Amino acid sequence: MYIPVFDDVIAAHDRIRPYIHRTPVLTSSFLNELTGAELFFKCENFQKAGAFKVRGASNAVFGLSEDMLEKGVATHSSGNHALSLSYAAGRRGIPCTVVMPRTAPQAKKDAVRGYGGRIVECEPSTTSREAVFADVVAETGAEFVHPYNDPRVIAGQATCSREFMEQVEGLEALVAPIGGGGMISGTCLTVSSTAPGVKIYAAEPEQADDAARSFKAGHIIADDAPVTVADGLKVPLKDLTWHFVKTHVSDVLTASEEEIIEAMKLTWKRMKIVIEPSCAVPLAVILKNRAVFEGKRVGVIITGGNVDLDTLPWFKG
Amino acid sequence: MYIPVFDDVIAAHDRIRPYIHRTPVLTSSFLNELTGAELFFKCENFQKAGAFKVRGASNAVFGLSEDMLEKGVATHSSGNHALSLSYAAGRRGIPCTVVMPRTAPQAKKDAVRGYGGRIVECEPSTTSREAVFADVVAETGAEFVHPYNDPRVIAGQATCSREFMEQVEGLEALVAPIGGGGMISGTCLTVSSTAPGVKIYAAEPEQADDAARSFKAGHIIADDAPVTVADGLKVPLKDLTWHFVKTHVSDVLTASEEEIIEAMKLTWKRMKIVIEPSCAVPLAVILKNRAVFEGKRVGVIITGGNVDLDTLPWFKG
Repeated sequence: MYIPVFDDVIAAHDRIRPYIHRTPVLTSSFLNELTGAELFFKCENFQKAGAFKVRGASNAVFGLSEDMLEKGVATHSSGNHALSLSYAAGRRGIPCTVVMPRTAPQAKKDAVRGYGGRIVECEPSTTSREAVFADVVAETGAEFVHPYNDPRVIAGQATCSREFMEQVEGLEALVAPIGGGGMISGTCLTVSSTAPGVKIYAAEPEQADDAARSFKAGHIIADDAPVTVADGLKVPLKDLTWHFVKTHVSDVLTASEEEIIEAMKLTWKRMKIVIEPSCAVPLAVILKNRAVFEGKRVGVIITGGNVDLDTLPWFKG
Repeated sequence: MYIPVFDDVIAAHDRIRPYIHRTPVLTSSFLNELTGAELFFKCENFQKAGAFKVRGASNAVFGLSEDMLEKGVATHSSGNHALSLSYAAGRRGIPCTVVMPRTAPQAKKDAVRGYGGRIVECEPSTTSREAVFADVVAETGAEFVHPYNDPRVIAGQATCSREFMEQVEGLEALVAPIGGGGMISGTCLTVSSTAPGVKIYAAEPEQADDAARSFKAGHIIADDAPVTVADGLKVPLKDLTWHFVKTHVSDVLTASEEEIIEAMKLTWKRMKIVIEPSCAVPLAVILKNRAVFEGKRVGVIITGGNVDLDTLPWFKG
C-alpha cells in the first residue's frame, strides 16, 4: 500500500489545474450568527462536473501512462466519482466505464452519459457492486480508478484543502463529510503537512455511521447497504483512507436524516446555493455540536451540487 | 421629476458600500455552449437580503435626513424591495412599514419580519396596494421609498452594473429582468455614462408584458394585476423608469411561463445557484433569441434568490 505524501499533492495540483476550477469560498452572516462560529464554505458544488471528485479523477486520468489510454478507465461509484471520471476521461479522449447502483439519482446517471461515460448497473450494495465491477474489468482491461482508496485519487482530493488554506487565513478546524473517506484523507494529507494544528472533523449520517463506529473501535467496520438521504456517503472505509482517518481525524460526528435535510434546506435558503444532501452533514453536525465549534474559524467543504431537482428530500411523496 | 446622473451613482456607491456585498460573477461553460454566447452572471442572489434591491433601499435609508429618522420609512413591494428596505432600516435602527400583497411568497414575508419590518397586507393589484399604502403613510408620517420610481433607488441599483463593468471586460450586451424598471434604469444610467456602446436588453414575462407593449407604443401601458410565476415582475413602469427605458433600452424581449421555469431549473441544475423565477427570464430570452446574442460577451444580472423552497414551480400540485 503506497501512502501518498504532500509532494504527490503538489504534482497532482500542477497536473489537474487546467481541468478544474479554483472554487470560491462563501460566507453567511446568518449562519455565523446561528452557530456562533465563523464559517467558511469551500464551494466544490461549483467544481467541474459539480463535485470535488473531479480533482482525484483528473489526477488519475491525466497521470495514466500512454499504453493504457486505449483501454481507458473504469470504476464503481454511487455517483459523483462516476461522472467526474467520465468528465476527465472525456477531456483526455479515452473510454470510461462505470458501475452504478440502479438506485443512483437520475441526474447523476444523465450526467455520466452526458460526459460520454458508459454505465453498467448493479444492485445498491457493496457486494453486488464489486461483483459486477470484476466482470467489467475482465471484459475491458481498463485501469481501475477506485473512487477513494487510491493514492492518485487522495492526492487529487487533497488539492481542495490546499486551495482552501490559501484562500482563508487562520482556519482552526475543517469539517468535511465522510463516506469512503477520500475527501477526508486528502484533507488529512494537506493539513498534516502544512498546518498540523488545524483540527479535522468528519461528518457522517447516523444511518450510515460505519466511520464513527470504526473510529471508536479502532478498526474498520463496514456496512453493506446503509440507507440515508446522503447518497454519496454510503460506502465504507478502506485500508488507505482508514490510515488517514485513524491518524489525523479529531472526531467523527453524526447527524440524523432530519437534521441533514434541515441543514440542506437552510443552506439553499440562506446561501442561495444548490448542495447535495451529503454536503449538508457538516453544517448539521456543527449545529448539533455548538460547543466544539463556537468562537472558532471553521472551514466547511461543500463537496458537490448534483441533486435531482425533481425529488427534493423535503417534498414528501 | 429629478433624473439621477452618474455622480449620484458614485455618491450612492460610497454611501452603501459598508452595507452591501460586491457580488461575484459566475460563468458556465455548459450554458455558453448551449447559447453560443459568452455569458457572465452577476450574482445578486448572493447580495445582502438576497436581492439587488438592497442597493437602492440602502441608498435611500442611509441618505435620509436626521429629522426623518424617528418616523422611519415605508413602501409597497411585491417582495424583495420590502425586505431590502427592512434590512437597511434595521441597519440604521429606524422603523420600516411595508405594504405587501397577501399572495406574496411566505419566504419573503418571513424575511421582512426577520429584519424587523412591519407588514400591512393588501390585495394583489396595483389599485389595492396604492390605496392601502396611502393609509399607512397618513398614519406613520414615514418617508416613502418607492420600490423603483425614485432617483435614490435608481442610483443605488446602478451600482450593480458599475461593479459588473469593472469585473468583466469587453461586455457587449447586458440583459436584466424588467418589472417596474428600477434595475434596468440603473443599468441604463451606468452604461450610458460609462460605456454607451453596450446594448441593454430588458427581459419580461409574456404574461406581464406591459413594458414590451409600452416600448412598442412609445408610452406607458400599465396592467393592473398580471399573473406570472415571475412574482417580482408584475408591477408597471412609472415616469422615471420609463424615461430610462425609452431612451437607452435596445429591446424588450419576452418569454413564456414554461420557458422561464425551464431556464430557472436549468440554472439551478447547471450553475448550482438558487435563483428566483424573475431572474430566469434573461436566460429564457437569450435561449429564445439566439441570433441576437450569439458570439457576444453578454452580462446577465441575476437579481435575487428569495424563493419559497416549499412551492417550486416545476412541482405540479
